[in-house]
Amino acid sequence: MAVLGCGSVGSQVVRLLREQAGDLTARVGAPVELVGVAVRRLDAPREVEVPAGLLTTDAAGLVARPDVDLVVEVIGGIEPARGLILAALENGASVVTANKALLAEDGPTLFEAAEKAGRDLYYEAAVAGAIPILRPLRESLAGDRVTRVLGIVNGTTNFILDKMDTSGAGFAEALEEAQDLGYAEADPTADVEGFDAAAKAAILASLAFHSRVTAADVYREGISEVTAADVQSAREMNSVVKLLAICELRTGASGDQAVSVRVHPAMIPRSHPLASVREAYNAVFVESEAAGQLMFYGPGAGGAPTASAVLGDLVTVARNRLADARGAGESAYADRAVLPMGETRTRYHVAIDVDDRAGVLAAVATAFAEHGVSIQTVRQEGRDLDAQLVVVSHEATDAQLSATVAHLRDMDIVREVTSVMRVEGEQE
Amino acid sequence: MAVLGCGSVGSQVVRLLREQAGDLTARVGAPVELVGVAVRRLDAPREVEVPAGLLTTDAAGLVARPDVDLVVEVIGGIEPARGLILAALENGASVVTANKALLAEDGPTLFEAAEKAGRDLYYEAAVAGAIPILRPLRESLAGDRVTRVLGIVNGTTNFILDKMDTSGAGFAEALEEAQDLGYAEADPTADVEGFDAAAKAAILASLAFHSRVTAADVYREGISEVTAADVQSAREMNSVVKLLAICELRTGASGDQAVSVRVHPAMIPRSHPLASVREAYNAVFVESEAAGQLMFYGPGAGGAPTASAVLGDLVTVARNRLADARGAGESAYADRAVLPMGETRTRYHVAIDVDDRAGVLAAVATAFAEHGVSIQTVRQEGRDLDAQLVVVSHEATDAQLSATVAHLRDMDIVREVTSVMRVEGEQE
Repeated sequence: MAVLGCGSVGSQVVRLLREQAGDLTARVGAPVELVGVAVRRLDAPREVEVPAGLLTTDAAGLVARPDVDLVVEVIGGIEPARGLILAALENGASVVTANKALLAEDGPTLFEAAEKAGRDLYYEAAVAGAIPILRPLRESLAGDRVTRVLGIVNGTTNFILDKMDTSGAGFAEALEEAQDLGYAEADPTADVEGFDAAAKAAILASLAFHSRVTAADVYREGISEVTAADVQSAREMNSVVKLLAICELRTGASGDQAVSVRVHPAMIPRSHPLASVREAYNAVFVESEAAGQLMFYGPGAGGAPTASAVLGDLVTVARNRLADARGAGESAYADRAVLPMGETRTRYHVAIDVDDRAGVLAAVATAFAEHGVSIQTVRQEGRDLDAQLVVVSHEATDAQLSATVAHLRDMDIVREVTSVMRVEGEQE
Repeated sequence: MAVLGCGSVGSQVVRLLREQAGDLTARVGAPVELVGVAVRRLDAPREVEVPAGLLTTDAAGLVARPDVDLVVEVIGGIEPARGLILAALENGASVVTANKALLAEDGPTLFEAAEKAGRDLYYEAAVAGAIPILRPLRESLAGDRVTRVLGIVNGTTNFILDKMDTSGAGFAEALEEAQDLGYAEADPTADVEGFDAAAKAAILASLAFHSRVTAADVYREGISEVTAADVQSAREMNSVVKLLAICELRTGASGDQAVSVRVHPAMIPRSHPLASVREAYNAVFVESEAAGQLMFYGPGAGGAPTASAVLGDLVTVARNRLADARGAGESAYADRAVLPMGETRTRYHVAIDVDDRAGVLAAVATAFAEHGVSIQTVRQEGRDLDAQLVVVSHEATDAQLSATVAHLRDMDIVREVTSVMRVEGEQE
């Protein structure tokens, strides 16, 4: 076997392969022999010592070797990862990858190549690090009907939002702390703007609903616009703001079941199991018809946890090779459409600074009604220049709700719409 | 395929097989055809309508049919389940079972029969109902080294303890409520005395540590002796009492790694992820070297949730049949010894009613020290006739700790040892 990439995940994969060689041999039924590790620079500093004889800068040559029957790809990104995975499969190797971006952008190409080669392509480590979630979705729940997946699948944003909740900090301050502690990168865009979570949402939705969902199908909003006031507003509702990856089976306009898949900040009640996921931890909450509500919790990133998921796949894939068998490939038979965000039914929390005079509440309520949005609760706070209305709607289409907010912003009696946020979790 | 047993789980298996036939066919790659359901009485009332033509009282005849290549056993208990599973395997069928008692008592006989027949024996539903925990332990964590499994795996006892915690009720009162609500059976012994949890602990320990552990190896204490005072005492320590199934890798007297496996009530800090598992829910907390801390949460019992786990296994086993492959069989290569309870290192919480006079604390501390037990905290409460000492020890062997408690009970200054309970979770 060969490992492509020797960064924080790859070096832990190499370490575990060596430290647990005896156990791996017993579990696979034969030794797993590492013949090469492809790196960009032979002399780069590494977390774990790798025998120099294993290192090579010729990744393409490594995957073409006839004695490489298993390839672990932990380079990340689109190229050269895609080309190397395709070459490995074509060469008859089975592949284990942690590459969420590639899977979400171009999974079908990889799945088809694996199918054609008759080899396995496993990728547990691509979503939620060490947490076993893809295998349970794909295998444990294969006899059930998953209706919803709600995930906290990005540790950076969870750390930032948790910090804002516990300390009252604003986004910028919490981001800076995350950067200082190594939870956020110098350029935090992929995390804070929800790109990373959107890739994972696409992978989760594909598996949960047996349909092809790519990153481009995922509606995405990040957390950079979340303010301390939003978090405070959530707290007043006994809720907390989380960046959620939401995958739901919903009835579309045609009456068919469609997939709603989106990543955005949302308020969830503190009583929801996801609300207590702190710091950089990840958790995925799954609802299915027969099993009911399940939750999977653990470290969503980090070298060793991600390597654990890679090695779990490696053992399965290696066992399959020995038995000349294959695990389940892509399952996209249901071929469900993706529901446009505008047609997705959501709930909104809207805080509005208003003029404190008679008839304000009626006017605001009328605006909601005009767009067909029913109000669940209204709370009136402050007086005079501090008068504020906090409205939580019932479910309506996202298009109706955003039209309502645009309408509110145009009203004379509305001084400012100070917080708009979607609400998830059980309607009380 | 055939289903043996049509109680609350069996009838849900039959329902799901029929309602989700299209999805199951797509996921397996071929139709799953139900040819018979073995029942004790043809005319018994059932939750789900089963076509009369499928019902038979001849279970042995059903598993011997040449067209039965998959058997789901949801009768429970030792016989006739064991005989039928062995006959099914011998007849070339693969088997899915939810039978924890049988697996914990005589798993090796079943595993050997499956091995000999070259067939699959899957049993996800045997532990924690719908929660995917066995497959993650066996497959997802196959490249890692599990060091500890802590589980709330019995819903009845969790409901009772949760009730005692939230309402201050005593054990008898909480049990009665559980019985009224259908969470506890008329004869609650198997649940409240920990037999059910012990069977599950044996199964979890076997998988986690790749060793044979049977129910007889599990140290077991139930919750019938847990008092409202114990629960109150836990609350004062910001802890909660849970019935835990604990499986740990520990260094034995010989210096080898041994398996500690036990079921007993224990105090855990409210900050521990297991502390927030309420009512009849189950959760399993897993610690491993690379992945760190994982938790799996969901409904641990009930017809539909358990049937979901059965059907998940069924899809895998059916796919394997089609591919002429087999999943991983028993893995007991590590062959670790089970550590006697007396040698297991635990921590104790001990509440003692004492005479309120000078030197009491010193005398009690001396008793602990004489048995080699180091004290972590002592809290002194009340005065005069209400004087109480609450001691939490550091880790010591269970034998040292129980000798300490016996010693305390003999001391003149000790009026009564009012609460003795083990303490789990991080040492602060």
